[in-house]
Amino acid sequence: MAEQRQIRFGILGCATVARKLARAISLAPNATISAVGSSTAEKAAAFAAENDCPATAKLYGSYDAVLDDPDVDAVYIALPTSLHVRWAVLAAQKKKHVLVEKPVALNAAELDLILAACESSGVQYMDATSWMHHPRTAKMKEFLSDPLRLGQLKSVHCNVSFSVGETPDVDALGDNAWHSIGAVLLTTDYELPESVTAFRDPEVNEAGVILSCGASLKWKDGRVATFYCSSLADMAMDIFAYGTAGKLRVHDFVTPFPEQSAPSFYTFESYRLIEHGVNSELPQDALMVMEFCNLAGSGSSPEKKWAVVSRKTQLVVDAIMASIHKGFETIEVVY
Amino acid sequence: MAEQRQIRFGILGCATVARKLARAISLAPNATISAVGSSTAEKAAAFAAENDCPATAKLYGSYDAVLDDPDVDAVYIALPTSLHVRWAVLAAQKKKHVLVEKPVALNAAELDLILAACESSGVQYMDATSWMHHPRTAKMKEFLSDPLRLGQLKSVHCNVSFSVGETPDVDALGDNAWHSIGAVLLTTDYELPESVTAFRDPEVNEAGVILSCGASLKWKDGRVATFYCSSLADMAMDIFAYGTAGKLRVHDFVTPFPEQSAPSFYTFESYRLIEHGVNSELPQDALMVMEFCNLAGSGSSPEKKWAVVSRKTQLVVDAIMASIHKGFETIEVVY
Repeated sequence: MAEQRQIRFGILGCATVARKLARAISLAPNATISAVGSSTAEKAAAFAAENDCPATAKLYGSYDAVLDDPDVDAVYIALPTSLHVRWAVLAAQKKKHVLVEKPVALNAAELDLILAACESSGVQYMDATSWMHHPRTAKMKEFLSDPLRLGQLKSVHCNVSFSVGETPDVDALGDNAWHSIGAVLLTTDYELPESVTAFRDPEVNEAGVILSCGASLKWKDGRVATFYCSSLADMAMDIFAYGTAGKLRVHDFVTPFPEQSAPSFYTFESYRLIEHGVNSELPQDALMVMEFCNLAGSGSSPEKKWAVVSRKTQLVVDAIMASIHKGFETIEVVY
Repeated sequence: MAEQRQIRFGILGCATVARKLARAISLAPNATISAVGSSTAEKAAAFAAENDCPATAKLYGSYDAVLDDPDVDAVYIALPTSLHVRWAVLAAQKKKHVLVEKPVALNAAELDLILAACESSGVQYMDATSWMHHPRTAKMKEFLSDPLRLGQLKSVHCNVSFSVGETPDVDALGDNAWHSIGAVLLTTDYELPESVTAFRDPEVNEAGVILSCGASLKWKDGRVATFYCSSLADMAMDIFAYGTAGKLRVHDFVTPFPEQSAPSFYTFESYRLIEHGVNSELPQDALMVMEFCNLAGSGSSPEKKWAVVSRKTQLVVDAIMASIHKGFETIEVVY
C-alpha cells in the first residue's frame, strides 16, 4: 500500500463535521492532508493541531489559496450547504477532485452546476455519505436484490432522528432526510419514485427551521416508501424493507453503533431471523476516502455513479420541499 | 376456578377464524360452548366435531335458533363482516352478550347500530382483537406512557402483512388495517388523529379488492403515524414507536411467533437495547374470552371501554377509506 499514489487533500472549512473526515484521510492509505483552509489562518492552524494533521500541511486563511495550491489534488468541502456550489464549482474549475459534505446543495439546479463543472474538468465527484461505503451496505444490497430472499420489494420505512433540541440551524429535511432518501433509494436500486407527498404540517421552530417531517413515496409498480426525520426524537437510524419473500432491518445504518465491531443487519428469510455481522478494518469514512482516492488517482475518466446517486437524492429532497411548500400536494419526480 | 360462573357461548358462523375461538372458549375457565349455529345443522355438527366442542353443545342449522336458545348467554360472531350488524343487533336485542370478529362493521354507522343495541340491552360488547389482551400489550403500554423511558411520542410506523396471494376476498384494509390502526391508537393512548391521508394508488386486484394500502395520520401536536398493510408481502406484524427519550419495537404484535413461550418486545432506553419477554399461561385468545366473560358475568353494568376502542378504530378505517375514494385527500377524523 505504501507505493500507492497518495491523493493530497485540501480541506475547505473547519466545521465539526470536518474532524471525522480529517481522521478518515489520515487512516486511508492513499490519502494525505496537504492543506487546510478556513476564514482565518489561525482557525486553520487550530484545526490542524486539534486533528493531528501532518506538520507539512499548509494552513491558509482563505479557501481560494487552497484551490490555487498546486500540491492539492482534491478538496473536501465541509462548508455550510449554501456555500457548496460556489466552492465546489471553483475547485472543479481548478482541476481539483471534489468530495463534498451532504446535503450537497440547496437544490438540484445548484447541484447540476457542481456536476457540470466536475464533468467539464474531468475531475472525480463524490458526496460524503460514508455509510454507502461500508461493506455492510453492499451485503444489504445483495439481500435486497435477491429474488429468493427478499423477493419483490413492497414497502420501505426509514426513520432518521437525532435529538439536537429546539434550535438546530439545519432543517431536519437536510442531513437526516439526505440519509433517509439515500437509504430508500438503496432499496429500490436507485429507481426514482414516480411521486412524493409530504406529511402535513411538519414541526418548525420560530425561525422556520423544520424540526420534524416526513413523506410517502410511490413507484409505478405499487411500491411504497415512507420516511420520518426529526431533530427532536431520540436517535434513530432505522431502515425496514418488506418484500414478498423476506424482510430486512437495520438500526444503525448511518453510523454503526460504536460498540459493534462488526455492525449488523437482520433479515427474515423463510420465517427465520438471521443476524449478519459485517466487519470492516477501517471506519466507513476512511473507506469512503479510499474509494474516492482510488477513483481520483486511477488515471481513467471519472466514475459517474456517485454523481447520479447524489442527483437522484437531491431530486427527491427537492420534490418533498416542493410538496411542503405547495400545501402537501403530490409532486412528480422527474430525472 | 371451578366454581366461577361459566358464560355459555353460542358460536355464529363456522369460518376458519372461529376454530381459534372455539379452542379459546374451551381453554378459558369461565366459558363454555353451549351452541353452534351455521347455515345447515350438518355444518354445525362438522365444526363441533372438528373443534372438540362439548357433547352437550346444541347444533343448529340457523343463527336465529342460537339467539332463541335460553341456554346461550353470549354469542361469538364469526360471520362475514357484512353480516355482523344484522346478527349482532339481533343478539343484543335477545340479551346475549356480543363478542364479534373484526373488522366489526363496514363503517361506523353500522358499528353504532351494534353499540346502541348492546347499550340498550345492557349486554357486554367486545371485538375479537385478541392481542390487546396479552399481558405483553399492557407492558408495552407501560413503556409507551412513561415520560422517562419513551418520553414524548414523536412518530409511529406499523406494518401488518400476510401473504394470501392475488385473490383474497377481504381488503388488506380490513383485518390488517384493523390491527395496524389498533396498534397506532395504542401508542397514542387512544387519542384520535386529527386527520388521515391515504397513500396514493393502493394495489387492487381485478375484483377491486385492495391488496396493499397505507396512510399517514397526524395529531395536532405534530405526532405522525404511518402504516402499510398488504396481502402480497411476506408476513409482518411490526410496530415501531419513536419518542424523545426512547423507542419501542415489536415484531409479532398480532400473533406472537409460535416458538416464543414468552413473546418479546424491545425498547431502547438511554441507548441500551432491552428485551422484555412477557409470559402468559393461556394464549391471548383465551385471555380475551376470559376477560369478556368476567365482564359479562360480573352482574354490574357493561364495561364501555371496548366499545370506545372499536369505534375509534372504525372511525380511522372509515376516514382512510374516504381518503382513498376522494383522490387521496386529507380527511378529518371526528369522534
